[in-house]
Amino acid sequence: MIKISAPKSHPRFLSLYYRDLLAEGVRIGITSLQGLTAHGRGETFDYLIGEKTLLFAKSSIKATAALLLLARYPVLSVNGNTAILVPKEFIKLSNLVGAQIEVNIFHASKERERKIKAHLEKFGAGRVLLPGKARISGIESNRWMISSIGQKKADVVFVPLEDGDRTQALTAMGKKVITVDLNPLSRTAQTATITIVDNIVRVMPLLIKKADDLKNSPPEKLLQIVERYDNKKILSEALNFINRRLHILARR
Amino acid sequence: MIKISAPKSHPRFLSLYYRDLLAEGVRIGITSLQGLTAHGRGETFDYLIGEKTLLFAKSSIKATAALLLLARYPVLSVNGNTAILVPKEFIKLSNLVGAQIEVNIFHASKERERKIKAHLEKFGAGRVLLPGKARISGIESNRWMISSIGQKKADVVFVPLEDGDRTQALTAMGKKVITVDLNPLSRTAQTATITIVDNIVRVMPLLIKKADDLKNSPPEKLLQIVERYDNKKILSEALNFINRRLHILARR
Repeated sequence: MIKISAPKSHPRFLSLYYRDLLAEGVRIGITSLQGLTAHGRGETFDYLIGEKTLLFAKSSIKATAALLLLARYPVLSVNGNTAILVPKEFIKLSNLVGAQIEVNIFHASKERERKIKAHLEKFGAGRVLLPGKARISGIESNRWMISSIGQKKADVVFVPLEDGDRTQALTAMGKKVITVDLNPLSRTAQTATITIVDNIVRVMPLLIKKADDLKNSPPEKLLQIVERYDNKKILSEALNFINRRLHILARR
Repeated sequence: MIKISAPKSHPRFLSLYYRDLLAEGVRIGITSLQGLTAHGRGETFDYLIGEKTLLFAKSSIKATAALLLLARYPVLSVNGNTAILVPKEFIKLSNLVGAQIEVNIFHASKERERKIKAHLEKFGAGRVLLPGKARISGIESNRWMISSIGQKKADVVFVPLEDGDRTQALTAMGKKVITVDLNPLSRTAQTATITIVDNIVRVMPLLIKKADDLKNSPPEKLLQIVERYDNKKILSEALNFINRRLHILARR
């Protein structure tokens, strides 16, 4: 059970709730300490976009659903933060688009990988892959390990809350990379094929809904959605939104 | 000893150093897990202001020094993050302006309070107050407890990295509240009497220097500094600065 420290009446209850949830994730060995700080950095950007799913994010979510449905071998990469925040949603999405789930964490730890896998299985996941002997080319240290029947084989990888080095290397391997990143300026955001600039806890239910809506669409329609999508334009819309919002807030 | 993970040559060495310091704070039971997330949140705003003490922060620091020197009964409130990041500086400032130090943490824990007190004593603190039976009116749960010879009695409270609810309640009790908050939009920033929009690790040495410079000034001069200070204007300058910087970053 998660011990929630803030009263429900607190105006920032949800934000404090997810912070407590991740702290619990650390206690049960799933989230890293660095994951907590990374979450905090995201919180600020969420705050700056007004903690809402905006139009640019909705476009990215639609393109993501289409790309996952079109993929020959899609893989959803889960880390310590996503495993705690959206475990059920990851499983639901993987069933809906026929994707593998693979554990991949930034601060490597075999024990934490196993705990994340067990955590997802507790929520009803079928197969959960662990990083094996395959490698992401161009990445130093043991962070390069991926599963040979997971990300190595994938044509489309969904890697929310990912590191810039890895996103770049996966893209360089010719894979289409979809990420969720609240910071439109990050290297991950700038390098990915599709960047959803939104909070993962809001993204997942919308993405599931959109994949469900589109799952019987003809491939030509899905292809059209993907081809019309322009990530550079989306990122600049996100930045412009933050800019305008700060401008208005500064004038209050 | 703190285990530092980044090499000194790393362009973000200082930022990574403080992150490691706080992780160590968690291990020794002083910083809360949620404190790491809160720190990450601040990191983003620090990034947005360019990790420098800007002119608006210097104005707030000067007004803070003057207000603390003028105070009848000033109290410095210390939490798990400030105890780890700036313990010596808190003690030095308390000696310089004749202020009480009181432990007050957002995620209440008697054990952590005692550890923070012991930690400060290790750095040479004289008296360190713990929250007692007195209450901040208007705050639910045990977060309302304060010391009857500390914040309860204070006319001026210095509460860096504070929560919005508490800042509002302290202000409503008629106290002058000084905070350090990298987010100029936060309720804490907006509610406080003086908001220093800067990183606490840069603020403390400058604040000590300023208090030392002003400590022999006549009260009329100190009063003039305080009366000329306009927190609304400072906050809007901080916001305008972030806005201009984002605008430039977006165009790169």
